[in-house]
Formats: sequence, C-alpha cells, structure tokens
Amino acid sequence: MSLVVVGSMAFDAIETPFGKSDKIIGGAGTFIAWCASNFVPVKQISVVGGDFPQEELDLLTARNVVLEGVQIKKDEKTFFWSGRYHMDMNSRDTLVTELNVLADFQPVVPESYQDCEFLMLGNLAPSVQLSVINQLKNKPKLVVLDTMNFWMDIALDDLKAVLKHVDVLMVNDSEARQLSGDYSLVRAAQKIHELGPKFVIIKKGEHGALLFHEDKVFAAPALPLEEVFDPTGAGDTFAGGFIAHIAKTKDISFENMKTAIIVGSAMASFAVEKFGTQRLREISVSDIHDRLQQFVQLATFDISLV
Amino acid sequence: MSLVVVGSMAFDAIETPFGKSDKIIGGAGTFIAWCASNFVPVKQISVVGGDFPQEELDLLTARNVVLEGVQIKKDEKTFFWSGRYHMDMNSRDTLVTELNVLADFQPVVPESYQDCEFLMLGNLAPSVQLSVINQLKNKPKLVVLDTMNFWMDIALDDLKAVLKHVDVLMVNDSEARQLSGDYSLVRAAQKIHELGPKFVIIKKGEHGALLFHEDKVFAAPALPLEEVFDPTGAGDTFAGGFIAHIAKTKDISFENMKTAIIVGSAMASFAVEKFGTQRLREISVSDIHDRLQQFVQLATFDISLV
Repeated sequence: MSLVVVGSMAFDAIETPFGKSDKIIGGAGTFIAWCASNFVPVKQISVVGGDFPQEELDLLTARNVVLEGVQIKKDEKTFFWSGRYHMDMNSRDTLVTELNVLADFQPVVPESYQDCEFLMLGNLAPSVQLSVINQLKNKPKLVVLDTMNFWMDIALDDLKAVLKHVDVLMVNDSEARQLSGDYSLVRAAQKIHELGPKFVIIKKGEHGALLFHEDKVFAAPALPLEEVFDPTGAGDTFAGGFIAHIAKTKDISFENMKTAIIVGSAMASFAVEKFGTQRLREISVSDIHDRLQQFVQLATFDISLV
Repeated sequence: MSLVVVGSMAFDAIETPFGKSDKIIGGAGTFIAWCASNFVPVKQISVVGGDFPQEELDLLTARNVVLEGVQIKKDEKTFFWSGRYHMDMNSRDTLVTELNVLADFQPVVPESYQDCEFLMLGNLAPSVQLSVINQLKNKPKLVVLDTMNFWMDIALDDLKAVLKHVDVLMVNDSEARQLSGDYSLVRAAQKIHELGPKFVIIKKGEHGALLFHEDKVFAAPALPLEEVFDPTGAGDTFAGGFIAHIAKTKDISFENMKTAIIVGSAMASFAVEKFGTQRLREISVSDIHDRLQQFVQLATFDISLV
C-alpha cells in the first residue's frame, strides 16, 4: 500500500523584498515529494520537459520517490512560473506563467501505483486531479486535495466535480470564503462539507491553520519566524507533511489529523527559511524532531490552575 | 493585597453589519471590571459624569468591584464614543468622540488601594497611566499596560515614559509594528523589550495572540466563531481575564502567563457574542469552565506518534 502524489514539477524564478532567485526547481509536486519522503516512500505523478535536470530526478529517486508516473517530454519545456512577493509576504504578483508541458498534461497512473492507499492531489487543474481519481481501481483510504483561487475563477464546475470524491480539502482563508460565498470561516467550512470534503483545512499563513470536521475544530499555530525568506511552496510543503504523517500512521481519525497538521506546519516553517526547496534538502530527522518540540512549547498550556 | 484596574467607564453607540446599539455602557475599565470580577475582587480607578447610571455602579459593587477610586463629576458628562465596524469586523470608523470628563482626568489613588499587588492599566492617555504608577508607594508585583495606535500618534514620548515602568505590554499586531518600526513580529517584540516591558503580548483578533519573553514564544488561538457580533471591548476583556488569572494565582511565571492568555481569550470569546458588556453579565462560572475546555480541545495535539 502506498502514498501517491500528483503535482507540478517546475522551474520558478522568485523575487522577494530580501532577494531574487535564479531559475530554480519548484512546483507543488516537487515540494510535496521533498517533504513527504522524510516520512514515507512516495509514488509521484507529474510531467516535465527535456530541460528538467536528470540529477534532480536522481536525487528524488534516492529519497524513495518513485518516478514511474512522471512523464518526460523530451522535446518540450518544463512549466515555468515567476513571481514577486510584496512586503507582507502574503500577497504576490505573477510575472510570468509558461504552462509548456502542463498545457495538455494527461496524467497516467502506472499499474504499480494501483496499491494507492493515500492520495495527495497537489494544486493543479481540477480535471487532471479528477482524471487520477478515475484511473484508480480501488478507492483510496484518504483523498486530500489542495487547490487555489485560480481554479475557482476559471474551472469552478470541474473543481466541484472533483470535490465530490475528496475527503480533505486544503485552501487558504480567502479561498474558503470565495468557494463558500460566506465570510465566516465556521460557516464556510460547513458549506464546503456539503460539496464533498468531510474535513476542511484552512491555511492562514503566518496565523497557522484550522481544521474543521463535523462540529469539531482544531487551531494550529504557525511558528513565529524572525524572517520569512521565501513563502513559495509553503502550502505544498504543509500538504506534504500532512499526508505523509497520515500515510505513515495509517490513521485517519480527527485526533491524528491534528498531529498531521502540526507536522505539516513544522515542515512549512523550514520551507520558508530559504529560496525554493533548498532548506528541505538540508534538514535531518533530528531537525524535524527539534522543530516539532518547538511547536509543543509554542502551543501547550495548562488550565488546571484556573 | 489587591488588583487595581485603571480604565475608562463610558457610553458607547455601536454599528456593525449585523445591527446597531442604543447608547450603552462601555469603556475599557468597565469591560476589564466585568471580566476580572469573575475571578478576584477589583479596585477600580476611573471617572464618570453625573449622567452615569447609579445602578451600573451598584451592579459592579455587588460583584466585588470597589469604586472608591472612581470619581463622579456630578455636573459633567461621561465619556462617549460611537463607531461603525466594517464587514471584516477588524477595522472600524470612529463616528463620535466626546471626551467630556476624560478631558482633564486626574486619577487619584485612594489610600486603601496602596496594597496594590497587580496593576492593570487599561487603554487611556499614557500620562494618566503614569500618574497612577507614580502615586503607588510600593512597586506592584506586575504592571500590565494596554494601549493603542492613537497614543503612539499623539503622545509617543509619554507612552515611552510609562513603558519604562511596565512589565507586560499588550498591543495588536499593527501597533507592535508601529511602535517598533519593524514588520517582523519577532523582532518587533525584541525592540519593545528594550523599551521596558519584559513580556510582550501581541493581540491578533480572530487569529489569537502571541506572548514573547526573552527567547520564548507562546501562540494562543482564538475560538473560531460562527459570528462575531460586536468586537468592542474584546481587547479590554482579554486584558481583564489575563490580569485576573495572574492576580488569583499570584504567579508571574511565563508558564502561568500562557494560562492567563487562554483565560483572556476565553473571556474575549464571550464578549463578542453580544453588544457591549451584555454577554459578560450573563455568563456563569460553569460557562467559563466549559469555554476553557473548548480551548483545550481547540489547541491540544499529540506528537508522540510522529
């Protein structure tokens, strides 16, 4: 049984108030794979062009990321995105989007991926996400979907179609409001429940994340950082940590999802410390455990004396 | 030994997207007293006009709020504020400010208040806050100060003068940035430490609160509510719950301040459920304990399985 990840593998060029990157490795699928492979093997579904470095693929293979589902289109170019972050690091302008191989991406699920128990659908066109679900012969134990306002703007019907098959939806607060049409996040989560996902995770960046399920709610903090160097991929890394903990423990209870959100938050707190996937490539198991302990210190309190 | 509270007692008229209040009882000191008196007796310092209802004063007296330090200026009018909240409930426009008795408020600390062990300086002119500190013959065990951007704009030197005597400063995130000149809240807290307060609490409304002390940080969540009916007084109520728990336990450790912030957050979550102080007048000890348990459910997680 396995974790299958679907997501873009890309080149990014990033400008922040603190600096500017060259054309570096990015993409939702890349961040998810670098993050999740700290915890469990990953079976990756994606597409790249002939310009994508073989050594990057080899590095992932060495980390137990299976690439049989990654199509390499020799004569085409890899997806490229360039953006500039504002001072608050929450808002950004897209400078360049070259879809390239993503423009007509038809994902193919290899036979060896049919043991998929946990499915992480990274941010991509909802029709691509749905195609992967439809190719699986057995329903996974848990399907998690990450998406963004862009797809709500141009492919809302497709998004609603795929949401019917999704257990856990991840969006940010403004996207939850857009999708539900409700300003109150509590009511927004209730309305999203009705679209399919029984669990709704609302990402709030520096303010942490909320998990809603039935009448229950969990609030995870974000680690206050002196500097957020590059927020690119933070949400993807969060998703990777979340699904990896679930896949490792094979426990889809609300209580274990709380832990999974803390794992995701801890991993995301690393991702923003350097440009792109750099920090995720450096950290050790011991760094991760230290960071998790920081979250315990950050969030633990005792009301027995009240 | 006692808790002394300094703060305005006022009339408010409030408009929100959900409704409009008559001229109702408000003021930072009022919210703090209604909240804190659930936990400990309060010795109040304030000023009202002849138009302030005697029954309101009697209700506070019945709750163990000592009013010897509340001046009643028979021939003058009570401070009046009117405001209108925007849809997000975080921003508001001030419609009317009539200072009235507050214009030349000279606080007088009664002899019976000289046993002050814990001092809560609610949001008021920094010169008034400093005057109270200067009248105390013995330094309190803990001095907590709440302030706002208004005083940073018009009385920054006064504010910096009083901060030298303050142990715990409470401000919101934009105020922390304004006071420190630093966008990063981690560095903002470090810079505010240098102004005097060893503990800095940054209030983030629906996103909870942060406590900074030396190299330690604590993040408290806010309870996600279906509807915030009226945010007026939420920060004052938070302050009241915080200082009341400290005064009750007489423990000024970082660990106990974490608990105090949860108590403050729980009390604030009641305050916003109805206009003005209405909800604070209704709640019982059992309501408070149930709400604290909700915070435990909201924030507790277990990383032992990671």
